[in-house]
Order: sequence, then C-alpha cells, then structure tokens
Amino acid sequence: MQNFTYQNTTKIVFGKGKEEDVGEYTAKHGSKVLLHYGGGSIKKYGTYDKVIESLEAAGVEYVELGGVEPNPKLSLVQEGIELAKEESVDFILAVGGGSVIDSAKAIAVGYFYDGDVWDFYYGDAEITEALPVGVVLTIPAAGSESSTSSVVTKLDGMYKRSIDSKLIRPKFAIMNPEITFTLPNYQTACGAVDIMAHIMERYFTNTDNVEYTDRLSEASLKTIINNTPKVLENNEDYAARAEIMWVGSNAHNGLLGTGREEDWSSHGMEHELSGIYDVAHGAGLAVVFPAWMNYVYQHDLERFAQFAHRVWDVDPDFKDLEWTARQGIKKTKEFFSQIGMPVTLKELDIPAKRLEEMAEKATENGPIGSFVELDTEDVLTIYNNALE
Amino acid sequence: MQNFTYQNTTKIVFGKGKEEDVGEYTAKHGSKVLLHYGGGSIKKYGTYDKVIESLEAAGVEYVELGGVEPNPKLSLVQEGIELAKEESVDFILAVGGGSVIDSAKAIAVGYFYDGDVWDFYYGDAEITEALPVGVVLTIPAAGSESSTSSVVTKLDGMYKRSIDSKLIRPKFAIMNPEITFTLPNYQTACGAVDIMAHIMERYFTNTDNVEYTDRLSEASLKTIINNTPKVLENNEDYAARAEIMWVGSNAHNGLLGTGREEDWSSHGMEHELSGIYDVAHGAGLAVVFPAWMNYVYQHDLERFAQFAHRVWDVDPDFKDLEWTARQGIKKTKEFFSQIGMPVTLKELDIPAKRLEEMAEKATENGPIGSFVELDTEDVLTIYNNALE
Repeated sequence: MQNFTYQNTTKIVFGKGKEEDVGEYTAKHGSKVLLHYGGGSIKKYGTYDKVIESLEAAGVEYVELGGVEPNPKLSLVQEGIELAKEESVDFILAVGGGSVIDSAKAIAVGYFYDGDVWDFYYGDAEITEALPVGVVLTIPAAGSESSTSSVVTKLDGMYKRSIDSKLIRPKFAIMNPEITFTLPNYQTACGAVDIMAHIMERYFTNTDNVEYTDRLSEASLKTIINNTPKVLENNEDYAARAEIMWVGSNAHNGLLGTGREEDWSSHGMEHELSGIYDVAHGAGLAVVFPAWMNYVYQHDLERFAQFAHRVWDVDPDFKDLEWTARQGIKKTKEFFSQIGMPVTLKELDIPAKRLEEMAEKATENGPIGSFVELDTEDVLTIYNNALE
Repeated sequence: MQNFTYQNTTKIVFGKGKEEDVGEYTAKHGSKVLLHYGGGSIKKYGTYDKVIESLEAAGVEYVELGGVEPNPKLSLVQEGIELAKEESVDFILAVGGGSVIDSAKAIAVGYFYDGDVWDFYYGDAEITEALPVGVVLTIPAAGSESSTSSVVTKLDGMYKRSIDSKLIRPKFAIMNPEITFTLPNYQTACGAVDIMAHIMERYFTNTDNVEYTDRLSEASLKTIINNTPKVLENNEDYAARAEIMWVGSNAHNGLLGTGREEDWSSHGMEHELSGIYDVAHGAGLAVVFPAWMNYVYQHDLERFAQFAHRVWDVDPDFKDLEWTARQGIKKTKEFFSQIGMPVTLKELDIPAKRLEEMAEKATENGPIGSFVELDTEDVLTIYNNALE
C-alpha cells in the first residue's frame, strides 16, 4: 500500500424526495445561484419545478443556464462564466448528470480567472479558487457529484480534457433514486459501464498489498452487476436504482483509489472517441475497456485471475491462470453486451480512418496508463483490436 | 434502503512517517494545543518525541495531559477541561488509541460548557460547540479517529456512556501502520474484534435492500479476518498492519451504516462488562457478540446464512438455513479464540454474581438493540449463556 491523504467533504443527502430540500442546503453556502442544467428532462419530469420552489422558499435568488450537452462544451462553460460574473452569483447549483456537474465545476473555476478557463484544462494555469458547487444528481454514472474532477470538450480541434482539484469537490450532493426512474435504458447502461470503469481504472494497479481496496472494489462491481439488469427490466425498481446510485458516488470519490496507483488509460482512449464522434462516454468505455484488458492482461495474470474469480465467480484453474484471466475479460464484455452496450467500434459506427489521429492525440503528452504504459502504437493497436 | 445523510470530513493522512507532519496539520487549526495521551508507550517507542519535534517546528505551543487509561475515565476528562480552560488552548491533539481520542473529544465538548461534562453523556445537555480535535492514531480498533462518537466511564456508579455529534469528528487523523508494530498481540486482537464488531453492529439489520453496504461490510470483515493472523505471527508486517488500520477507520466512519438501521446492543452489553470489570473492550465484545448472535439468529436466518457464506465461505445448505447460519456464528467464535481472545465470561474471570445488575443497567433506558429488541430478561439470558 502506498502512503495517501484522503478526505471527502461532500455532504451526501440521499433518498426519496430529497431534492425538495435543495433550497435549505444551498442557502448554507450562497444567496444567489447560477442554476445549471441540461436539456428538457428535468422540466419534463418535474425536478426543475421542485428545485425552483425549494430555492424560492429558502429565499435564494437564481439565474439560469440550461443547455448542457453530453460531453459538455467549453463554449457553454464560457457563456456560464460570463453570466456568473455579470450576475455576481456566489454559488453554482448543478441539476443533472456528470456533464452538467462538470460544466458547473468549470464555471466555478473560471469565475475567478481573467484568462480562458481552458488554460486549466490544458495545464497552463493552476486552480487556486473556485465558487462552491452543489448538485442535484439525475444520472448516476460519472461520480462527479462528490469527485474532484471535471471533463470538458473544446470543439475547436475536438479536445476533451480534464482538471482535478479538491476546490471543485461539491459541497453537497442530493441523490434521489426516484429521479432516475425516467432514464432511458441506454443511458442507465452507459452509467453502469462508466461506474464500473471508474472502479476498474483503480483496480488494475501495480501497487502490491492492497487487499482492502481490492475487496471494496469487488463489492462495488458486484453490486452494479447485480442491479443493472434489474433496473433495465423494471425502470422503477427503487431498491436497485438506489444501489447503483450509491455505488456510483463511492466509485469515484477517491476511496477505492486510496493507497494505490491508478491507471486511467481506458478513459484517456475513450475521451478521444467521444471527443471526435460525440458518442456517450459509457458506450465508448464499453468498447475500449475490454479491448484494453485483452491487450494488457498478461502483465499481471494473478490480478486478472482474481478479478475473474471474485467479481465474475469464475472457478479458477490454478494451473492455467491465463485461461482464468481471460474468462473474466470475456464475462465483462458479455455483460456489457447483455445490458445493451456496444463492444466494438463498428457498433458505434466509428470507422477505422481516424484511429491514428486519435492514438496520437491520446498520447500527445507521452505514454498513458500506469498498469501498463501505452505509447501511440499501443493505443492504435487497441483501437484497431476494438474495430469489430 | 433508508434515506440518509452522510458526510465524513476527517482528513486521513496515511502511511510511513506521517506522524512527523503532525505540526503542519495542527497549525492549520490551532496555535496552542492540549496534547493528550495515555501511558508510557508513546514515549517508549519514540512517537512522543516525533510529535513534540513536529509541533515545535511548526511553532505550535502545547500543554500536556497524559495518563488516559483504557475505558477512559470522567475524572481525567474533568481535569483536562480545567487545564484546557486555564491554558486557553484552541485545539486538542490526541496521540493514542480509542480511549485517548474519546477522552480528547470529551474535553473538547466540556471546554465550552459550564456544567459537568457528564451531562452530555447522560443525555441531559446537547452539544452545540466543541474545540477541534486532531489525532495521531496508535491503535487501530475504536475507529474514533474519524467517528462522531466518544465513550467515557464514570467510576462513581461504574457507568460507561457515549455521545454522538458531528462536532467531535476529528479534523485530521494521522495513521502510520509502523507505529502499531509494537502493539502486544492481545491488544492487536482486541482491536480486530472491536473493528469486526463495529461492522457487525451495522450488518445485522432489519432494513431490506442494502446490498451495497452488505458487500462493503463483508469486504471489510474478510480483510480483518485475513490480516489479523498475519500480524499476530509477524508484528512488523507492514502490509497487514496497514490493511487493518484502514479497515478500522472505515468500519466506524459511518459509511457502512448508510441507509441501514443499526443494532448496537452488543456494544451496550459490553459497556456494562467493561464499565464494572475494566476488561478490554475488544475482549468483552469477543464474549458478548457470539452469545448475542446465538440468541437472535433465528430472527433472520437468511441474513445469518448470507453472513456465513460470504464472510466465512460456508457452503450454504439451502434446505437447512438454520444449520448454515449456525456455521457462521461458530466460525466467528472460533476465529476470536484463534486470535487469542476470550469467548466466555469465565475466561475473563467475570463471575455470575453481578449479571443481573449489569442487565438492569444496560436496559435502564428501555430495551436495547433494533435487529431484535432486548429487554432486561433477554440481556440477562445472553450474559448467562456467555458464562462458559
């Protein structure tokens, strides 16, 4: 186990009807908020009205900026920063999923910065201040509701880049599983893959002696694997929706990475896919992650065998760990298929022609990953292996 | 799953040599600290010197109060409060295990109160303010380093009572597994039982649909079960010490109880034992918990069968869940014995004569527990069943 520092300050407010208390939680941090959200779903299903009512009851003023798209765009972030400055807001309330929250975090750091907020994402400026952010979560997936990261896409050049700072960890995250009843199955499945990927990016590590975080990770994966099919079968299964929602936060709040080196190359490779083709992040991960596993598993057969056995209940063949390891990868891929996710680039309608460009972009700052370091050639091979 | 609110603000600073940074962390919260500790072990093994050196280097003034005993006493707490007031300290630094930390928390709440601090423990006053507390953990067991609770014993009448408030959650907890190398095996084993008990008090619940916290709990228990024997065999097994230490905090920081009703009757019964006989809390729990399990398991055979299967790898007999359930209890008790813990009152040299008095005291505010509510008769039966 490596030395680590860990602190997760986000207050989780979990359960039925909790979005109706958002005004009260917001009022503890601000008096004038930028209410940030995505498309029409929060209006269609009543969440918007409940939030507005609660803010008004708590005497919190608000200005609105909707329109956040999946793979949130820098242009809307810039618009949000202008608006936040003009209106002198002192808090940002994100009502949505990971894209809305990431966009809100970007606005939060841009608020105190005179230059282009992209500087933070490109590594040209350091985050020293941010407006506080609060969340009403509507899609369990990104874990952004209690994470320190934000991912934004710049259309000019199709760059998708991220920042990481404890200053953008949300103050509170209101999580009502009922709000997720109306999520389409495809989006639920994308969320499940994203959550699993957050766990697996930490699970496949070169750090020895990490039994506890291994076991916590396996517990988290099994919970997603058991509950996702239930939710796809019955969208209003509160219990299963709640399990997924709570795992989603813990998968990405840092706990599962304590004391371990993390990998994140699959996320890096996926960002190039969704940066260029605007596919759903979870769908991209369902394609990239198994291809990555197949490319790297021989680096640590014991770890992949443990994954197969503990997560997928594969009976280990101790004389053939390679076979055992492969069963875990196979089952991961089969599970993604079963829940309706693509597992090849072909299924995503992504052709071979720009793979080289993506491989170069993914590695433009040098090799990615730590479990196995991947250079441009490696990334290209993985993309090619994922074609069909 | 029940609705819940969860926030754990303690900063965990984990790893080799980290106690040398205590001055830096302390200086963020205070400039004059009450340094609170137990017997001589922190002086004997060098931790005291490192802490003092670090405080001085950071320019933090300190006054000292040592002498905290296991099952920390109200009298020393009162002395600490006087000293803290006289010296106008603005921070309390606990260097020790659960007893030292609990004593420090008691001083922290007593500092702002004109009456007797026992009023909080007896439920006659409400905690509205507390000095900030920091921790250098030397014994992984109580989980007090990131918990909201404190347990103190009043010798007059032999009462052991607790408080619970987020105001006493430590600001930081420095956890270096190396510091635990010198713990005697008996104390290590007591710690393991205490950690397991914190998990099991939450595991045995009447709340349905708690798969995720079940699995996290099982992961935590398995990690303790695997690593405790390793540490008893090799006291300087850093990896195993680290696993135990990190589980110890997570076992009692609230995470494993999110969305569930908790029980806590075994702790209640044990507090009467250690209140009167001054036995180590973990040793008392090793006696009480299996006796409690045997008394209540028929209330939910499925849950006890799951515990047997997932925690102890018992092959379930689906046609005989009662047998399956009993195997889990048997294995729990055997494990406690194997690591050198008593499993009967006789082994603790506790005779039958005061059991009735203890049963009455344990239930003086009404029945205890929630998985199965226990009245005075029930508690007495459990004590009697634990005799030998």
